[in-house]
Amino acid sequence: MERTRCVLGVDVGGAKLTLGIVDVEGRILESLERRSPFDSEKKMIDQLAMLVSEGLKSANEANLKPAAVGLGVAGFILHENGIVVESPNIAWREVPLRRIVSERTGFPVFLDNDANAACLGEKLAGAAKGVADFIYLTLGTGIGGGICIDGKIYRGFRGTAAEFGHVAVDPDGPLCGCGRRGCLESLASGTALKREAIALAKMDKNSLLWKISGGEIEKIDGEAISLAADESDSVACEAFSRVSRYLGIGIASLIHIFDPEMVVLGGGMSASGHLFINDVRKAVRENGNDFLVRDANVCLSTLGREAGVVGAASIAWEGIGECS
Amino acid sequence: MERTRCVLGVDVGGAKLTLGIVDVEGRILESLERRSPFDSEKKMIDQLAMLVSEGLKSANEANLKPAAVGLGVAGFILHENGIVVESPNIAWREVPLRRIVSERTGFPVFLDNDANAACLGEKLAGAAKGVADFIYLTLGTGIGGGICIDGKIYRGFRGTAAEFGHVAVDPDGPLCGCGRRGCLESLASGTALKREAIALAKMDKNSLLWKISGGEIEKIDGEAISLAADESDSVACEAFSRVSRYLGIGIASLIHIFDPEMVVLGGGMSASGHLFINDVRKAVRENGNDFLVRDANVCLSTLGREAGVVGAASIAWEGIGECS
Repeated sequence: MERTRCVLGVDVGGAKLTLGIVDVEGRILESLERRSPFDSEKKMIDQLAMLVSEGLKSANEANLKPAAVGLGVAGFILHENGIVVESPNIAWREVPLRRIVSERTGFPVFLDNDANAACLGEKLAGAAKGVADFIYLTLGTGIGGGICIDGKIYRGFRGTAAEFGHVAVDPDGPLCGCGRRGCLESLASGTALKREAIALAKMDKNSLLWKISGGEIEKIDGEAISLAADESDSVACEAFSRVSRYLGIGIASLIHIFDPEMVVLGGGMSASGHLFINDVRKAVRENGNDFLVRDANVCLSTLGREAGVVGAASIAWEGIGECS
Repeated sequence: MERTRCVLGVDVGGAKLTLGIVDVEGRILESLERRSPFDSEKKMIDQLAMLVSEGLKSANEANLKPAAVGLGVAGFILHENGIVVESPNIAWREVPLRRIVSERTGFPVFLDNDANAACLGEKLAGAAKGVADFIYLTLGTGIGGGICIDGKIYRGFRGTAAEFGHVAVDPDGPLCGCGRRGCLESLASGTALKREAIALAKMDKNSLLWKISGGEIEKIDGEAISLAADESDSVACEAFSRVSRYLGIGIASLIHIFDPEMVVLGGGMSASGHLFINDVRKAVRENGNDFLVRDANVCLSTLGREAGVVGAASIAWEGIGECS
């Protein structure tokens, strides 16, 4: 009997490496996880190569036939050359990761940034299944993006397209990690949510956030803010509301630019999507040209925590020409 | 002998209709011009149909073989259906212009907005000849845009993509014609240039603009401001400088989004391109992420006044599948 074909998708994160054995429909058949030794390029690559080898072994043991490996990495990635130019979570630069992992494992390897990967993952098995033209925003510590045109990831001339996080939204806005002011990322990411929540909590000692953080308000994270917002804490709700407004402004601009069939919001923050999706939709309508945004379909990722692995796997399927 | 094939391109403007007989290389072989009776939908359509008929006659007399008609119209256009949804310069709405002109002339007619048309024209015969992935901005009374991906105009899901003029740049910016604040159009169009020049001139009675306008500063136009800037008038130069800064911010965002091979600036303002192109390039570098914008190629349209007609013609060539 012919063995079922699969690929390995690896979400190469700052804290951990997650590998999935994924079929052509985007289903995760098995997964493995390892800590990321993010402080050392050599250790990280060793760990990654070892994990992929284990994955290949597991696939074979499960009577599956691995066809390729896909890697999703945050940062500036040159997809065509398979090079990690720069990664915020990982201490490496200009690493030809595709070649290295391919040489160590003997398998075809494809590399892309996590946002392009997640975007393609949504098309393979998520919210955008069957949709040809859509854009994807990953909302986490930063904001990344993906563009799907005519069913294919659009990567631009050098491979750095879809950096939606660094679209300028307010020239007088807060300082962004990139050194400029008022990028969408500085106003609407998880980092922005936390900054707003802390600033608001400092003016309201009754906020649930004080209790949740045990008085150490600077240490609250997105999960704590979501928890408080779920309890209708006014500070947490207001923080979400501020971030939603800027997301709406940014997304309205992207709709003016792309006229997409769908806008998909993913990334860590999308797990709390019920707390902000309606405000974002409202802000899109308020900040968009009525004719251009009135039919806009802004929705949440349906892949959730699996987006990283399914996305990386879809980059592998795409690489071997089998991502429909 | 086989007659040389051509198309007719018509730039349907608020003030005039300009028709060109255009070959497959984008060369204008002959052109005709008529006043736009912009106040009456019926008169406008009659005038347009008559002009096209004259153009077809001229082409035949010149022993050319017309293959199709292309119309470029400012406003919201549904290319696929050939409908003018709304046009700022012309008193009509929801007009099935493609069908009407086709029925009156018996030729295949293709319709698009002037910015998409000019974008494709630059690819056929202008600055972007041979370039597959580029974006185009038309800088005039307003700001329009065109997106060329993989050698083809990208129009989006409903056909309204590339509305770069309504990308939000500054939420506290001036009121835009669309009713919102701080759209790129409100900060960097010819209208913005005029507004800034008038405001600055009111604070500096020595500006050449007072002399050029004969004391009627509210009546100055882009040409007058360019004239003064050519004479190094500080008010006119400062007005260009302000507009250039916002153009740079907007274009940097578009480069972050598209990673294009080229950004082409056209429209009426591009005739004064020597007065602002270097400032725009500087502002792109200052407002863009170094890695993303450092190789950016921002240049001026080379079609100049012919952009409208060549663009409309290229929409006809594209329509019959012959725009390479």
